Amino acid sequence: MKIIKSVAEMKNLSSTIHRSGSSIGLVPTMGALHKGHLSLLERINNCCDYSVMSIFVNPAQFGPKEDFSKYPRPFDIDCEKAQAAGCDAVFAPSDDEMYPKNYSTYVNVENITERLCGASRPGHFRGVTTVVMKLFNIVNPQVAVFGQKDAQQVIVLKRMVHDLNMSINIDVAPIVREDDGLAMSSRNMYLTQEEHRDALMIYKGIKAAQDIYIAGERSSNVLNDAVRNEIMKSELIDIEYVEIFDTVQLQKMEYVLSPALIAAACRTKQSKTRLIDNCVIGGTL
Amino acid sequence: MKIIKSVAEMKNLSSTIHRSGSSIGLVPTMGALHKGHLSLLERINNCCDYSVMSIFVNPAQFGPKEDFSKYPRPFDIDCEKAQAAGCDAVFAPSDDEMYPKNYSTYVNVENITERLCGASRPGHFRGVTTVVMKLFNIVNPQVAVFGQKDAQQVIVLKRMVHDLNMSINIDVAPIVREDDGLAMSSRNMYLTQEEHRDALMIYKGIKAAQDIYIAGERSSNVLNDAVRNEIMKSELIDIEYVEIFDTVQLQKMEYVLSPALIAAACRTKQSKTRLIDNCVIGGTL
Repeated sequence: MKIIKSVAEMKNLSSTIHRSGSSIGLVPTMGALHKGHLSLLERINNCCDYSVMSIFVNPAQFGPKEDFSKYPRPFDIDCEKAQAAGCDAVFAPSDDEMYPKNYSTYVNVENITERLCGASRPGHFRGVTTVVMKLFNIVNPQVAVFGQKDAQQVIVLKRMVHDLNMSINIDVAPIVREDDGLAMSSRNMYLTQEEHRDALMIYKGIKAAQDIYIAGERSSNVLNDAVRNEIMKSELIDIEYVEIFDTVQLQKMEYVLSPALIAAACRTKQSKTRLIDNCVIGGTL
Repeated sequence: MKIIKSVAEMKNLSSTIHRSGSSIGLVPTMGALHKGHLSLLERINNCCDYSVMSIFVNPAQFGPKEDFSKYPRPFDIDCEKAQAAGCDAVFAPSDDEMYPKNYSTYVNVENITERLCGASRPGHFRGVTTVVMKLFNIVNPQVAVFGQKDAQQVIVLKRMVHDLNMSINIDVAPIVREDDGLAMSSRNMYLTQEEHRDALMIYKGIKAAQDIYIAGERSSNVLNDAVRNEIMKSELIDIEYVEIFDTVQLQKMEYVLSPALIAAACRTKQSKTRLIDNCVIGGTL
């Protein structure tokens, strides 16, 4: 497996691969790899000739008070995991390589980035769309895969690709969970044992809503309450939001009559860890 | 010459051309073609196998009080001129094709877009970078050519391409002038005869500054005054700005010791026509 640190080298590799007639798939990550990331790599290996995993903790998507500096960066272990999972190249540029002096260009998707996670994380999605645009231009993949766990990110990136007429296929991979049901996240390592146990309530709540939707319930309020009631059983977790939105424009819907996203974001009281989970009812992302 | 109106058709044509191993050059225009535009086409025909001229009056780069609706759109005549100049395809999408319902994504270059023309035209460059990003993704050219007349636009687009790691070569073509020296512009047709005569003062001023620079003058203030003194001889023209900035970061410089842009923007008092002109001293864009 190649490990590439410079933009120029990654661009060269990409054009060499394309000239040989092979396709490239990209798995953008911030490292701290878990089974969720590795499932993305597996999907790319199943549809593309050459797999590139980017590992870059993107400063532009962290707020000034967020966990950028303490975000885990176990780079050597990540490379071992990527290699074992069949990754062909890891692209791991430095901050300066990605955002050199006088850097000034940003890509922004308006409106749909201002709700859900965007409401509590201003600028977050601008950082995501900007770095993903850069990675797309550097790696030039046919396919890029993102996990449904970050559902709003998927919706925003699909909108960017569509609006800017980019020729890249966005593949969405299902959420991978711990054995107990907690959605895999690099931030789960921040949780205390008690918080981890209570964090399961988020998935239980979402599953409860999904179950009553399948049984015929269509009222957003009722579905929303089903999620909240479960999470509120925990005294260790605060709800940041629980929302039911359509999957394209992220608009509230009184009744779920078209594909909808049930999304929850919570924060643990003790370790202040932010946890998100979601499911899509009546369709897919 | 092909005339293409849909994004999908343009994308298909582009990939067909690339698959055949040919290169594509793009000339982005808003139509109302004059000799300046045709000189861009000539440059592309000299360096690329296939030339695409886009003709699109981009609503996103006009302010609410600007001349979007009255901007000239002589489409059939433009196509005749493009064909006669050796253009292989004109890409002329509708507004809805480029900005469909729920369109929400914008590319923005910060800082350097807030000075010069950006100061009086807020949002203008955001519209330019967004539409150019879209055109680049749709046409997928190896080279795109822009005229030095819109010098700040060139600097902003080069910054976008650099920052976002795009693999497109930006070619800069010299300003083409009327026989009397007035920089060619689709907006010159708005001028009264008297305004046209006085508009020549802008070029005279810039040339005066260039002459004293060549003779050894390095003070920005002195060079700036040389431009202003000439333009102020006209009673039909108001100065919007005359500035001397470095060509990369558009910062003021007390002395011109590295490549600098001398740029002027004026507005005629009677027809309210906005006119710009510039030259680069000590280097190129």
